[in-house]
Amino acid sequence: MSSKAVVLLSGGLDSATVLAVAKSKKFQCFALSFDYGQRHKQELNAAREVAKNIGVQKHVVLKLNLREFGGSALTASIDVPKDRDAQQIGHGIPVTYVPARNTVFLSCALAWAETLESFDIFIGVNALDYSGYPDCRPEYIAAFERMANLATRASVEQKGKFIIHTPLIDKKKSQIIQVGLDLGVDYSLTFSCYDPNGDGLSCGRCDACSLRLAAFEAIGKKDPLKYSGTKKNEDC
Amino acid sequence: MSSKAVVLLSGGLDSATVLAVAKSKKFQCFALSFDYGQRHKQELNAAREVAKNIGVQKHVVLKLNLREFGGSALTASIDVPKDRDAQQIGHGIPVTYVPARNTVFLSCALAWAETLESFDIFIGVNALDYSGYPDCRPEYIAAFERMANLATRASVEQKGKFIIHTPLIDKKKSQIIQVGLDLGVDYSLTFSCYDPNGDGLSCGRCDACSLRLAAFEAIGKKDPLKYSGTKKNEDC
Repeated sequence: MSSKAVVLLSGGLDSATVLAVAKSKKFQCFALSFDYGQRHKQELNAAREVAKNIGVQKHVVLKLNLREFGGSALTASIDVPKDRDAQQIGHGIPVTYVPARNTVFLSCALAWAETLESFDIFIGVNALDYSGYPDCRPEYIAAFERMANLATRASVEQKGKFIIHTPLIDKKKSQIIQVGLDLGVDYSLTFSCYDPNGDGLSCGRCDACSLRLAAFEAIGKKDPLKYSGTKKNEDC
Repeated sequence: MSSKAVVLLSGGLDSATVLAVAKSKKFQCFALSFDYGQRHKQELNAAREVAKNIGVQKHVVLKLNLREFGGSALTASIDVPKDRDAQQIGHGIPVTYVPARNTVFLSCALAWAETLESFDIFIGVNALDYSGYPDCRPEYIAAFERMANLATRASVEQKGKFIIHTPLIDKKKSQIIQVGLDLGVDYSLTFSCYDPNGDGLSCGRCDACSLRLAAFEAIGKKDPLKYSGTKKNEDC
């Protein structure tokens, strides 16, 4: 029987690709998403569609109201920045950073993995993200993995060693899309926008949309998502 | 102005003592409890009473349904062991172990601390616990602290260093009670039992009750809690 893996699935482009990578490595995949008080539910709907499309053993959407703590444009009432260029996006930690989010998500993934007797956790952190988000850097992932291997009954009883798999960590967004396309990922099911309009269309102007659009353009492909507008109005 | 601290508060004897210790060190305390699908709600009521009695800036009870994962007598349908002696209790990891619970709880505490611009987190792990629970050992706490200092915007921007305070880690249960009594903790408000009866009375026979009763006895004090029964029927 193949090994089990817990895959963090946000519904975005990166995590959909990671799920496809985990499947391609013959893991039985258990997808974990969070209803954490984010500004909109489109990404959770996307996570459900992606899980169904790629195929998972089980998909859990865990409720965890990080709004109780506040402190981010994604969970509190702070405006999402728009129309920033690549240099601005790559500089500093954006207001869309959610305090300790990956630590909370990985911890819950660890709890589920231990229950499933799985030692493999997949997360879609990548080179673009870790320029801005502290909890996407390789040294952070290594420290989490070390902690995880001291945290659990499974590791104390030496049944195995937890591995935090980050197959995208050294890849640019355009390379990630190419990996996913090669594995047959349907990116029309994914959702990246921080600030969709009332009809659920992506804004085309927040950092997430800007990075996504530029990455598709870089490999000469058209993003299959619909946008309400873009910075340069290419789609208007 | 005094520094802020996040204090994990279960409603049990240890965490009530830790809250009193944090207060005695002049921290502004923010108490964090979890409604995580535990078998009974008495401990959450106890946490609310303890927070009110000792005095906190804010008390958040975060909902996080760990029952979605299962895997422990405290969250799934497994019987709580009864009438075990000290040697049995101290041997191995009990079925009441909840997979990666402290990691999940500390991660949420870290998220709140970062939002509050606090660098101090208190948790009531102790010597008795870490004989059985992997995530109560000093090497685990040290690994978590190291990870936390790579995980956050606050640490990347070098605004401070997170400290996981474990003031009880080298103390026996009887010593913990003595610390608390010296600080004026009202232990009648706390709750330890894994398996209370329908009236909310402590069973007196699970591991948590056995350890608590023995500790009060060791320092020649009477536990102010009411019990439905005890192993040796002392109260009958």
